[in-house]
Amino acid sequence: MVITGKISLQTKGHCDIIDITSQVEQEVAGAKINSGTVTVFVTGSTAGVTTIEFEPGLLSDFKAMWERNVPQNVPYDHDRRWGDGNGYSHVRAALLGASLVVPFNDKKLALGTWQQIVLVDFDNRPRSRQIIVQIMGE
Amino acid sequence: MVITGKISLQTKGHCDIIDITSQVEQEVAGAKINSGTVTVFVTGSTAGVTTIEFEPGLLSDFKAMWERNVPQNVPYDHDRRWGDGNGYSHVRAALLGASLVVPFNDKKLALGTWQQIVLVDFDNRPRSRQIIVQIMGE
Amino acid sequence: MVITGKISLQTKGHCDIIDITSQVEQEVAGAKINSGTVTVFVTGSTAGVTTIEFEPGLLSDFKAMWERNVPQNVPYDHDRRWGDGNGYSHVRAALLGASLVVPFNDKKLALGTWQQIVLVDFDNRPRSRQIIVQIMGE
Repeated sequence: MVITGKISLQTKGHCDIIDITSQVEQEVAGAKINSGTVTVFVTGSTAGVTTIEFEPGLLSDFKAMWERNVPQNVPYDHDRRWGDGNGYSHVRAALLGASLVVPFNDKKLALGTWQQIVLVDFDNRPRSRQIIVQIMGE
Repeated sequence: MVITGKISLQTKGHCDIIDITSQVEQEVAGAKINSGTVTVFVTGSTAGVTTIEFEPGLLSDFKAMWERNVPQNVPYDHDRRWGDGNGYSHVRAALLGASLVVPFNDKKLALGTWQQIVLVDFDNRPRSRQIIVQIMGE
Repeated sequence: MVITGKISLQTKGHCDIIDITSQVEQEVAGAKINSGTVTVFVTGSTAGVTTIEFEPGLLSDFKAMWERNVPQNVPYDHDRRWGDGNGYSHVRAALLGASLVVPFNDKKLALGTWQQIVLVDFDNRPRSRQIIVQIMGE
């Protein structure tokens, strides 16, 4: 059986990290499926999905890692061609990945206590985002 | 229901980035499944799968990121042991990941307009690649 | 149909890389499912899952990449707040990702000969780990 939900949210961009765990859990709670997987997928090429312990120190550390490894202040061919100024956002998103798959049993996601599902919006401006939450199982 | 397709292609290696979106869409179009997930998985340890806006500027930017972060010109123990010269290819592939899962509904993948599914071949020579496209749903 | 297995293991932490391919294969062999996907998910926020050629040179190269790109010896806000000393572990895990999805057909995983499924434990101490192995298909 397949149930498809959607999370719509506003981000601030600029590596905004948003905890969507409770919304994903609500989708699973509302589906007539006890065990299976939930696929969390963000539509768009400047955002990604992962898990992290959602506490302010780590959110700052995660942003600093992106700034060190995929910095804004190197030249991007994307920006030279299109003038968007968000070449770094695309590269970060392609590296992090757009999808995450989390198993659940008896309606309970396999997450750890300090492991939250997050959307990371790398774009250089606020965005409206659609996250597909697809639940499959029995 | 499960349908398994395969994409076979030739790459140039050296961070060759190949847009496989239309082939994945064709597999979904041909399957008797309306809604579900498509898992895109590359067999082999020197290639990966992700999504990116497929335009020449970003392809160049993505390659430059790999060269900065997982450079060819540092010593690799893999190369010292085996002489393959592709230690960097393996490390890049392990970081990017071999699988991507994309939900679809009414045969339509949840991709954004500027979000393509790509194979990235990190190997240091042209390769024949097999990509498994497995469709599951109802 | 959905079958959920679990792999429990002890790690040494400190970027310990453990080959779990044969355990995943055993779960698939024992399930009454011939074709489908196996989702490998690690519970916790300081470990990740990927595929790599499991040979000592590459394991060393992979660790060196993490040390270069997400080093221990830069300051982490997580450590300033909580004193855990494992801020780098969390950031590495969030970048690598907690889940991997591998298709299989006629009980055979789509892995290459030199492509193993590994748990990477980034924590700064030995840990007991639970890895969920969820098999879905027909």
